[in-house]
Formats: sequence, C-alpha cells, structure tokens
Amino acid sequence: MNSPRDIEMLIEMMAKLPGLGPRSARRAVLHLIKKRELLLTPLADVMQIVAATARECVTCGNIGTTDECEICRDPKRQTGEICVVEDVADLWAMERGAVFKGRYHVLGGTLSALDGVGPEDLGIPRLIARVDAEGVSEVILALNATVDGQTTAHYIADQLEDRVAVTSLAQGVPIGGELDYLDDGTISAALKARKRV
Amino acid sequence: MNSPRDIEMLIEMMAKLPGLGPRSARRAVLHLIKKRELLLTPLADVMQIVAATARECVTCGNIGTTDECEICRDPKRQTGEICVVEDVADLWAMERGAVFKGRYHVLGGTLSALDGVGPEDLGIPRLIARVDAEGVSEVILALNATVDGQTTAHYIADQLEDRVAVTSLAQGVPIGGELDYLDDGTISAALKARKRV
Repeated sequence: MNSPRDIEMLIEMMAKLPGLGPRSARRAVLHLIKKRELLLTPLADVMQIVAATARECVTCGNIGTTDECEICRDPKRQTGEICVVEDVADLWAMERGAVFKGRYHVLGGTLSALDGVGPEDLGIPRLIARVDAEGVSEVILALNATVDGQTTAHYIADQLEDRVAVTSLAQGVPIGGELDYLDDGTISAALKARKRV
Repeated sequence: MNSPRDIEMLIEMMAKLPGLGPRSARRAVLHLIKKRELLLTPLADVMQIVAATARECVTCGNIGTTDECEICRDPKRQTGEICVVEDVADLWAMERGAVFKGRYHVLGGTLSALDGVGPEDLGIPRLIARVDAEGVSEVILALNATVDGQTTAHYIADQLEDRVAVTSLAQGVPIGGELDYLDDGTISAALKARKRV
C-alpha cells in the first residue's frame, strides 16, 4: 500500500538476509534506489553473475566459480597439509590470516545426533579418502571452540590418527586480549598450554 | 585471493549498504549463495526490475514505479491535507501508522546553511505552489524532532501561515514509553502540552 509491489518484495527479500531486519532492509532499499547507477544496477548485475556461476568445489567444499576452487587447483598449495573447517566463512577467515599455505576441507557443519547429522553428511569419508589419495602428512583441525565443534574434532581425530598426524589450533589468550575480560575457560586453557619464554 | 573476483565484488558492494559492514556482508553473501534458488536469483531479478522502474513521484517526491505515485493518483486521498516529511522513509513510517488519509510532500532533507541546502533544494516553492493549486486546507509538518528538522519546520510555517492552516505532530511521551527512560526535553514537552483527561 505504501510502496509499489516490486519495491515491497525487494524489502521483504533483503529482510531475510542475516543481520538485516525489516527496518534496516527498508533503509538499505531506499539507499539502493537513491544510488541506482552507482550501486543498485551493478549489485543486481553481480548477483546475476554469482547466481549463475557460484558452485561448491568438488574436492574441498569451498565456494568458487569453477568445479575445483582456486586453492585446490594451485599446485603450490599441495603441501601435504589439510585444514578442516566447519564452514566456508571459516575457510575465508583462515585465508585472511594468510599463514596457512596448504589446502582445506569444509565439513559444512558439525556432528549432531539431535539434528541427525552423521559423518557422511559432513563428508568425513571423503576427507579420509583425500588423506589416503593426496599423500597428506598432517590434518589440522580448525573447528570452532564450541561443544559441537570439539565433539566433531574428537571424532575426526579418532578416525585419522592411525593414518596421519592430526593437530588442532592452539587455544589461549587472543592477541590484544585483556585477561580481565576473558572467560574462565580460556584463561585455564591458556595456563595449561603455557610455554617457556 | 580467498574467493573469486565476482564473489569478492558482491561482498564489497553489499558492505556499502547501510547497516552492513565487511563481516556481515560476507555472512549475507554466503547465505545468498547457499540459498541460490530461493533467495539469490529472485533477489537479483527484483533488483533489476526496481533499478529499471523505480522513480520519484513528480508531485510529492515519494518513490514509486510510475510518474505519479499511487498516493497522489488516488482521488480518495485528495482530502485537502498535505503532510510534509523529510524523507521517503518518513513517508513510509507515516503510512504504516495508517491514520493519515491525505497526501504527502517529501522535502528530501532539511535546510542547512552549512551544507548550502536552501528552500529551492527542498522543493519548498513547489510545496507553496501545490498549496495554491490543490485547494489545500491544512499542511501538517511531520519533520524529525531534531534541530535541523525544527528549523525547517519553522521556515515552512513562516512561508505558509498566511495561506493555509499549518500544524505539526504532537510531542510527548511515546506509547509504551517509561518516564524513567525518557530524556528531559521529552518530559518537559509532554508536561507543557498536558491535556485534561
């Protein structure tokens, strides 16, 4: 009633994005319409392209525009290390760190008996096959430090420890972190894993 | 480096929307790619349509898909009342209230000597012309209760009070508001405008 149906539909769809609600979706759509040439038209074009080309890498599960993602195709990254992450967002976070030079394996979630998510749903058999086929020397578990993440990490470690070295990210005080603001679990983990200076 | 150029561009553009930053844009784009059929493709289509059809109403400045917006074209809304708002978002907010049955006039901002925004930039001469041409009996100023909004309201009232009745929205305690959480200005405005029960 207050705006034409197409604009109303655009607002409703934008409101479904994580981090946006009805109010911020309205603001975003008004902003888009005001910046039509600069933002709305190019954004619509890029969305069309991504909708047509984005796909999951058949090897690692990363999102790319080719059957195998750029990381899996890069021979320099065949270092014998596979980093296991829950989600593509976690893979991108690891890449922003720019320290890991190997390849990835995206689980797409965590084991959950309640939700009926088993090892097959996470591609864990595929991970085991990769370890055997790619001459992997180390599997680094970079799963979230949540109960579900750690349960999944234990399961994968159990499956793989006879075949290959399995490691996990260090737990401790984050860079720039103040002790006073950290939870007890982090402090006790950091204390247990203390290192000689 | 961590994701193909098109996806990277989509993230950069989404990050320019109000209310989204780089992190939430990444989350939104991953969500869109996961829900490609349900969300990404339809969203891109609707964006194309809106980019092609959205325009400002030549009469009131509302955003619609026709030269005159639905409100201005509706003869039932020719009540002789014009509600003056700063922005299309404010017009939509008034419409959600569903009480006002007249027409609107969108200023597109507030007077600002510092930013060089004068009456012509806000279409105030056009508003005066509408008052004369449309047989308007009342102009309701629904401008934001900010310093700029109130300055603009005073200017418009000065220009129009010889031609037509000029009113403004009541100021007071918002519905559901708790006195303890209200600022002093609102409480004193509500007290000054107190009404017999």
